[in-house]
Amino acid sequence: MHSTKQHLIQAGLIMLLEQGYNGLGIQALLDATDTPKGSFYHHFRDKEDFALQVLDTYMAGVHAGLDASLLDEALAPLARIRRFFDRTQESYRQEGYLGCLMGGLGQELSGVSEVFRRKIDWCLSSVSERIAKCLSEAQRKGDVPAACNVHEMADLLVNCWEGAALRSRLRRDPASLIAMLDFYINAVASTTRAP
Amino acid sequence: MHSTKQHLIQAGLIMLLEQGYNGLGIQALLDATDTPKGSFYHHFRDKEDFALQVLDTYMAGVHAGLDASLLDEALAPLARIRRFFDRTQESYRQEGYLGCLMGGLGQELSGVSEVFRRKIDWCLSSVSERIAKCLSEAQRKGDVPAACNVHEMADLLVNCWEGAALRSRLRRDPASLIAMLDFYINAVASTTRAP
Repeated sequence: MHSTKQHLIQAGLIMLLEQGYNGLGIQALLDATDTPKGSFYHHFRDKEDFALQVLDTYMAGVHAGLDASLLDEALAPLARIRRFFDRTQESYRQEGYLGCLMGGLGQELSGVSEVFRRKIDWCLSSVSERIAKCLSEAQRKGDVPAACNVHEMADLLVNCWEGAALRSRLRRDPASLIAMLDFYINAVASTTRAP
Repeated sequence: MHSTKQHLIQAGLIMLLEQGYNGLGIQALLDATDTPKGSFYHHFRDKEDFALQVLDTYMAGVHAGLDASLLDEALAPLARIRRFFDRTQESYRQEGYLGCLMGGLGQELSGVSEVFRRKIDWCLSSVSERIAKCLSEAQRKGDVPAACNVHEMADLLVNCWEGAALRSRLRRDPASLIAMLDFYINAVASTTRAP
């Protein structure tokens, strides 16, 4: 990727996390990155195109993180899921607990933009599918009850994570993320057992 | 409350849920409600003051809903909590699944506004405290294990609800809300049991 484009996307990611889509001014982005306006419009059609490309870059990072944790066969499947979210929490900490870009843009834009509504639901589903695959593996090893619907349980985890990420953003604090993971991992391994 | 003020707040609530804070134009609100500008500024100092008053009205509704469900002694405490969220889900349905105003404003504004960041965390905590009280009652009746930290578990429920509400907003669908409640109510009654 062209280095100017990469620079705009990296700066834009943090600005979108902090300020949201409507809060982000293109001029402020240009000023922050010392980029001429023509250069921005050479790489991006408009602000929507820019935000969608930032989201794609963000999602590439999320999926690289999923690869790094979920494909690590040295760990039990549930421990791989836990590691993915522990590392995500660590990256939130490094950014100052700004939460998740999917949650931020999803909340702000899904009432007014079908493009973002569908795209962000698709992004969350792409994460959920990866987790469902890992939950299936846990199920085959007997770590998750056979009666567990892994697709539902994966979606549930992703959704609850988004809620905990909102609270961590409000409090600038990881406690909500840790409490949710502890609860979920414990519960998915036991209470979904068939009666 | 003055009827013009009430009308502005009711219309503003739906517009804030749909469009977010930055997406909401005061002129669009005035047009939608056929209100002269001077009348808006008679009742509200500025847009921030307006949104905070909309949020206060929204929270009064949330707490009235908590009263109606959580104080109903004909139901077991966990069933009261379930009823509160079932009714909240029904109100989301009636609005077309626009989600929760706390989640919407919290995501959009907490990165740029200390006023909203603190206020919305306080609003979520006020709901959580009500639920913790009901979980304590469940605990006294033996429906929730003695080892359960009811304050943590109440916060967790509120946070997970916000995540499920985001997904219901993205999908215009209640499935994420129902799945989360089923999972939580089942798990809080069993897996938090002391080992």
